[in-house]
Amino acid sequence: QHTRHYHKLDEKAASEYMKNVPVLAEKLGGSPDDWEIQEVGDGNMNYVYIVEGPRGSLVLKQALPYVRCVGESWAMTLERAYFEAKALRKEFELAPEYVPEVYYFDHPMAIIAMRYLEPPHIILRKGLIAGTVYPRLAEHISDFMSKTLFHTSLLALDTHRHKEASAQSYANVEMCRLSEQVIFTEPYMEAANNRWTSPQLDPDVRALREDIELKVEVAELKARFCERTQALLHGDLHTGSVMVTETSTKVIDPEFSFYGPMAFDVGAFVANMFLAFFSQDGHAGMQGARDDYKKWILQTVSDVWSLFAAKFKGEWDKSWDSPGDAYLPAVYNTPAARTLSEMRFIEDVFVDMLGFAACKMIRRIVGIAHVEDMDSIADADKRAACERKALTCAKVIMKQRRKFSSITQVIDLVRHQ
Amino acid sequence: QHTRHYHKLDEKAASEYMKNVPVLAEKLGGSPDDWEIQEVGDGNMNYVYIVEGPRGSLVLKQALPYVRCVGESWAMTLERAYFEAKALRKEFELAPEYVPEVYYFDHPMAIIAMRYLEPPHIILRKGLIAGTVYPRLAEHISDFMSKTLFHTSLLALDTHRHKEASAQSYANVEMCRLSEQVIFTEPYMEAANNRWTSPQLDPDVRALREDIELKVEVAELKARFCERTQALLHGDLHTGSVMVTETSTKVIDPEFSFYGPMAFDVGAFVANMFLAFFSQDGHAGMQGARDDYKKWILQTVSDVWSLFAAKFKGEWDKSWDSPGDAYLPAVYNTPAARTLSEMRFIEDVFVDMLGFAACKMIRRIVGIAHVEDMDSIADADKRAACERKALTCAKVIMKQRRKFSSITQVIDLVRHQ
Ligand SMILES: Nc1ncnc2c1ncn2[C@@H]1O[C@H](COP(=O)(O)OP(=O)(O)O)[C@@H](O)[C@H]1O
Ligand SMILES: Nc1ncnc2c1ncn2[C@@H]1O[C@H](COP(=O)(O)OP(=O)(O)O)[C@@H](O)[C@H]1O
Ligand SMILES: [Mg+2]
Ligand SMILES: [Mg+2]
Ligand SMILES: [Mg+2]
Ligand SMILES: [Mg+2]
Ligand SMILES: [Mg+2]
Repeated sequence: QHTRHYHKLDEKAASEYMKNVPVLAEKLGGSPDDWEIQEVGDGNMNYVYIVEGPRGSLVLKQALPYVRCVGESWAMTLERAYFEAKALRKEFELAPEYVPEVYYFDHPMAIIAMRYLEPPHIILRKGLIAGTVYPRLAEHISDFMSKTLFHTSLLALDTHRHKEASAQSYANVEMCRLSEQVIFTEPYMEAANNRWTSPQLDPDVRALREDIELKVEVAELKARFCERTQALLHGDLHTGSVMVTETSTKVIDPEFSFYGPMAFDVGAFVANMFLAFFSQDGHAGMQGARDDYKKWILQTVSDVWSLFAAKFKGEWDKSWDSPGDAYLPAVYNTPAARTLSEMRFIEDVFVDMLGFAACKMIRRIVGIAHVEDMDSIADADKRAACERKALTCAKVIMKQRRKFSSITQVIDLVRHQ
Repeated sequence: QHTRHYHKLDEKAASEYMKNVPVLAEKLGGSPDDWEIQEVGDGNMNYVYIVEGPRGSLVLKQALPYVRCVGESWAMTLERAYFEAKALRKEFELAPEYVPEVYYFDHPMAIIAMRYLEPPHIILRKGLIAGTVYPRLAEHISDFMSKTLFHTSLLALDTHRHKEASAQSYANVEMCRLSEQVIFTEPYMEAANNRWTSPQLDPDVRALREDIELKVEVAELKARFCERTQALLHGDLHTGSVMVTETSTKVIDPEFSFYGPMAFDVGAFVANMFLAFFSQDGHAGMQGARDDYKKWILQTVSDVWSLFAAKFKGEWDKSWDSPGDAYLPAVYNTPAARTLSEMRFIEDVFVDMLGFAACKMIRRIVGIAHVEDMDSIADADKRAACERKALTCAKVIMKQRRKFSSITQVIDLVRHQ
């Protein structure tokens, strides 16, 4: 199957395709006539088919050689499917509870077949907009992040394996470049892609572009993003890349995966939770209706960070005899040295996490890709008010990020914005 | 020529070899009988032949598949010659005044033919031990560093070229691993390779291994060394990798070259100048005889840093329209933003430079490879006194490195140690 040339599938062609891939045909059972196929891709980039057969179901995801929501004018490498499949498999190896299993990958066709995350799984962002509480979310996502980030870093790998893995991930450069552009650059300049709630936020956007202190901080974070090959990142870990039920949490869509700074993944998730928080007033039927929910969101962010830090240290504590080349046991394996090493490491992730979170909040308000949490607030004044709070808060987080001594202080800032 | 298998040359075989490489035979002129060949490799790793013919001269450097000074028991990849040749060529492209031209490279034979740096060129370290002043040194070496580091970074390159170059350099992983081991790890543990002036420094070595604060700082720098693909480094820029005359400065031997943090190269040079400084009292025929020379060394370090900072900014100022993806003009090209960007960037290099310099000083006193500056002090008590000052100073530099506000403060510390 791997010598086929790329062509874009529709429902009918997808059916034909799966008929010829034994592992898929067998999983579905019956014959192509029995298969229900539905395109559900709500993302900006790719086609996603849900396929159900008499015996089983699956999801078929195919990349397009351009950005779906823009059209053929914005070309986009098909290679991202390769990196997505590779990351899904590595994440599944490290944290199987939180990742759909990959059944099949076709490189030239840019097709991934994976487990269908059946209802009631929904995209976390939609659950947050609906005001649904997910009691296991913090525990699960922190578990996913700590395991995938720790075990792909030099804390767990030797130099050979770590350098080789990061050198291989470089080839996802197109996607890295896209992130650089839309996260770290365009929000701070005039760019055709940018949009914002106008005219309400016009002065805010102007102030952002003139905020030199902020822009220089952003440049430092961009350099870390481009240069720090610390661990295998998901690369796009917002609340639209997580599917949830009350008891299950699954991370999908790592097509931006590459070796980068751990804090980028953690910051992406936190940023989108904060955006969800700031959007709640726009969704509350009446004043105060979402107050308990807002508390839950902030508690969840607090838990995500605390649990991430604790679980990451937990992985580390279990790994002092691992081949990880960063902190060799002969030098660091005493109680005091371990404690200080772990504390400093986590503090470093914390500060960068806040910086990346701030970048991610800002770009979702003034850049190309917004979040449904805000966009679904129909009243522009109401929306602008929510967005302004988020933007103001992000700027403070960015500039003060080295001064917070705990996540609680950050949460307090967000709560009282 | 590129299909030959590796075999180690001696003088006679080298002559035969060059006879069969037209570009080399022509450069030398005459016939093999007319060629004078002399092995001069004083390094730990490779064979270096100086070859003089009727028409011209050259240096032939061949790597061995093991560490020369240890023997076949310590295997070492021949691939380092490839990275050395590649780095020499890139450096020659960017800063031709300071790099010997490569005439010829034979990959399977791990042979580099390059310009012979004729007398009175000598290894800088030997000049420093002899107490010779090099009035152009600071200007030259800062020029070399600013040009090579700036133009291989994301300040000058676009993301595609930068990521590709750094991914390719990953394959010099054997040499990176060696640096990790001997610079960042073994000095802080019991290791068969370590040696120091004993018993004089025994308590100092013990204290070093118990200095948790210091070791955790070292771990952070090691992480930067392993993970930060900022620019193409020389990778071994000590005073034994620089050849000088009163008017000329040439950098040789970049076999450790890889994409790493800029500060590592600058720190390597500074560290070795500080070691030269601290060794002077061991070389002074009588008390105070080297006082002027010590002043010159410190002035040179001060100039190296100030000129590096100024020249680096100079390259940057000329490059605001370059394809460098780090600071796009549309975001940063205003006088105030440029000034703040450059200032912050240089401050960041400064702090890491001090950290790497401290690591390099420490490892040369208690690790596997010492410096002739100290080793040539025959009196062990005298030598230990010099080494202790250097070691003590390095520890302070490491721990205080975020607090110095200028190179002058660092120099004052060194002077009054
Ligand atoms: N394994 C899956 N199970 C169920 N639904 C999925 C699965 N993968 C994707 N989807 C649905 O398809 C949508 C788009 O998938 P995603 O991988 O995020 O594509 P894109 O890269 O285009 O954003 C998701 O928001 C989700 O609704
Ligand atoms: N191009 C050159 N011209 C003159 N002498 C050289 C040249 N290259 C090397 N040498 C001499 O050979 C010695 C070892 O060379 P070097 O490249 O440092 O080898 P190694 O990698 O073994 O340290 C140098 O210290 C210097 O004395
Ligand atoms: Mg998606
Ligand atoms: Mg996607
Ligand atoms: Mg370990
Ligand atoms: Mg050498
Ligand atoms: Mg060498």
